[in-house]
Amino acid sequence: MIDEEMQELFDKIQDLLVQKDYIALRSTLIELQEADIAGLIGELPDEDVPIVFRLLPKETAAECFAYLEPDVQATLINVFSDRELWNVIAGLYVDDMVDIIEEMPANVVMRIIRNTPYEKREQVNMILRYPKNSAGTIMTTEFVELKQWMTREQVFRNIRESGVEKETVYDCYVTDPSRRLIGVISVKDLIMSEDENATVDELMETEVISANVLEDRESVVDLMKKYGFVALPVTDGENRLVGIVTSDDALTVIEDESTEDIEIMAAITPSEKTYFRTTVFETWKMRIPWLLFLMISSVFTSKILQYFEGQLTANGALIAFMPMLMGTAGNAGGQVSVTIIRSLSIGEVHMSDILKIIWKEFRVSILCGITLAVVNFLKMLAVDNVTIGVALTVSVTISLTVVVAKFIGGILPVIAKRIGFDPAVMASPFITTICDAVSLLLYFRVASMILGI
Amino acid sequence: MIDEEMQELFDKIQDLLVQKDYIALRSTLIELQEADIAGLIGELPDEDVPIVFRLLPKETAAECFAYLEPDVQATLINVFSDRELWNVIAGLYVDDMVDIIEEMPANVVMRIIRNTPYEKREQVNMILRYPKNSAGTIMTTEFVELKQWMTREQVFRNIRESGVEKETVYDCYVTDPSRRLIGVISVKDLIMSEDENATVDELMETEVISANVLEDRESVVDLMKKYGFVALPVTDGENRLVGIVTSDDALTVIEDESTEDIEIMAAITPSEKTYFRTTVFETWKMRIPWLLFLMISSVFTSKILQYFEGQLTANGALIAFMPMLMGTAGNAGGQVSVTIIRSLSIGEVHMSDILKIIWKEFRVSILCGITLAVVNFLKMLAVDNVTIGVALTVSVTISLTVVVAKFIGGILPVIAKRIGFDPAVMASPFITTICDAVSLLLYFRVASMILGI
Repeated sequence: MIDEEMQELFDKIQDLLVQKDYIALRSTLIELQEADIAGLIGELPDEDVPIVFRLLPKETAAECFAYLEPDVQATLINVFSDRELWNVIAGLYVDDMVDIIEEMPANVVMRIIRNTPYEKREQVNMILRYPKNSAGTIMTTEFVELKQWMTREQVFRNIRESGVEKETVYDCYVTDPSRRLIGVISVKDLIMSEDENATVDELMETEVISANVLEDRESVVDLMKKYGFVALPVTDGENRLVGIVTSDDALTVIEDESTEDIEIMAAITPSEKTYFRTTVFETWKMRIPWLLFLMISSVFTSKILQYFEGQLTANGALIAFMPMLMGTAGNAGGQVSVTIIRSLSIGEVHMSDILKIIWKEFRVSILCGITLAVVNFLKMLAVDNVTIGVALTVSVTISLTVVVAKFIGGILPVIAKRIGFDPAVMASPFITTICDAVSLLLYFRVASMILGI
Repeated sequence: MIDEEMQELFDKIQDLLVQKDYIALRSTLIELQEADIAGLIGELPDEDVPIVFRLLPKETAAECFAYLEPDVQATLINVFSDRELWNVIAGLYVDDMVDIIEEMPANVVMRIIRNTPYEKREQVNMILRYPKNSAGTIMTTEFVELKQWMTREQVFRNIRESGVEKETVYDCYVTDPSRRLIGVISVKDLIMSEDENATVDELMETEVISANVLEDRESVVDLMKKYGFVALPVTDGENRLVGIVTSDDALTVIEDESTEDIEIMAAITPSEKTYFRTTVFETWKMRIPWLLFLMISSVFTSKILQYFEGQLTANGALIAFMPMLMGTAGNAGGQVSVTIIRSLSIGEVHMSDILKIIWKEFRVSILCGITLAVVNFLKMLAVDNVTIGVALTVSVTISLTVVVAKFIGGILPVIAKRIGFDPAVMASPFITTICDAVSLLLYFRVASMILGI
């Protein structure tokens, strides 16, 4: 729904609230998609939230609850009676419930758990126990499980009775009596079969691609992308079916992983919370280690400059171009490192490609180096009012720096990956620190050769 | 399939090729998933590719062809007879065909188009005409279209006869005689209905959420994420159904958009090609404009330094800490800008939040500034062998710089978005250039106050 429509609806809802016309309000709400109802409720002042939420029919209420922002959920749970809470929780899918519990403060979690039916509580606990970022934490435990002897009608009845989420219906998994995964059959296969009485056994695919529950969630999504699956079964160490991952979970994982990459590249410790839900102190904790580390590492540039202080004070004109040289080196190196990091992360480049990377970056850096040197030389003579010697020194340094920076930017992420680090830490801020030192060393070397100082 | 298994299979295939045992080779291949066959063929030397490909059964061949890398596809098309080409193309889905055509050189495209059945050619042309990044370019034109009067069995027969891709079957769209979209019905709804003879009319949802064919592909994916859809119908200006977007397309869009964001943030012009498929010259073209722009913009820092050259040569100790100050400012600003850019891009932060951002960053920057100043002061006295005055100058500057840098990093992306630029251009390299100038100005100001120079 587009923004203007939502705005209109929101005004209407507020009017109806003022007029206390709850019947009209209810009939306005039930026309809408649950995600939209949640969006509207989220905009209301806190005191109106429970009034509107209580107008929703039972099934809509639970689904809508899952879409609400955590702070609105907490507000509601606080005013719910135990009975209301029980009803909402009974209507939630296990994976949504896990998401909610992970966001709530401890006292609210206690109340939720107290009001959860025993079997569901077991499942929630199971998912919460899996290691961070494992397949187990993104899977859902509600799915359709078939037996070999079923016919189409029996499968359909089974689906009808399971009451599971829509996206988890279309790929059904077949298990043996000890719940080991032995086949997969899609609803499409069943529909496509002309013979109504064919059994699951005859139609199922027995080469099932599955993920282990402890596997990294990223590799699960890679499998789904590779084979174009909308769902992937998850098994335990003994090949027993424990859950399935669906395509909407995959979307979330891809987005989360990209955000994480981006944060690490910008020298921030990744967090799972959104910007405004992270407190000032938490934000400080995410950023300060890297700022400190990078500040301390600049001790190398300080030492280099202290060493060459005499040269610089003797030829003050050189000082003015240090930031430009360091900046260009950092940018050139950062461009490469970020490209390589991203390509490694989405599987377009592999560790074994290191020589190909070096060769390619060498040629690119020669082109870039020459372009920058020529433009810089002309610009310095025209604008900066310096001697040809100084202009030449800076221009030669710039082209050498770019070649070295692109080399460093190309190999560091691959080396990081090989020794088991996340390549993303080798992004611009880190490369910049190294390139700063390299460019200064080159600068003084070239200066002493060209200017004889 | 895990890497070792693939390696084993690949060795086996090569052995069978040497022994010319094509019967065993064929039966090995047909056991595998099409994506895996394509992966294996991609590793073979060029001369073996057609031999292996020709062993595949007709349906497998087309699907496998869609998974191959563009260079392998081109190799195959070059050796195909017209008849072979026709067969492969006949088995391709329209959206896969569009992807292939977009990657091929013009002469190959001509040959493909010549060997494409008329109706398919029309559809391909239609998709190719939509503007870049629009919904039209990611949709598929093969889907199940139902009429109101159909019953479950009739729908299933319709699905059987359509022969469309799996992921496009489960949400079926209902159109009126002039092909206008009037409803949506999922296969699950049909299965869930106890009454076998209920018609589409009675079961369908009439509030259909759809995208316009010219809409940006990113907003299409946002809709799918918001409502948790596995497919979304695409309509033209008159609400006629022209295609659907499925969840695997959404995955690709999310990944592409993140890569684009990351590239822009690293001051690279985004490209749709992978790293190794971009030529050296193209890579140069993607990177050099930004390097030049950033190099030229450092004219400000040069001017500042030229202006203060006297101060610096008079107190040489100050020179050594310039890179550290500029680096820290750039890192601090970059951390904020990247966080804000990403949050804007995934919709967690909005333009109207600018005051909240400033207030939050102000508090974070005070904490970061104090921490860095204290650590730096102690480090300079202990390691750098400088006077208390110099240590104090640098430390005070650092804390002021961090506050200003975080302010700039917080507001620039939002301002960029407001005036219609992509916020991602305001990432680290750009912020760094501004922060360099700001930190130097602050440095000289503080130095003249504390050291009296």
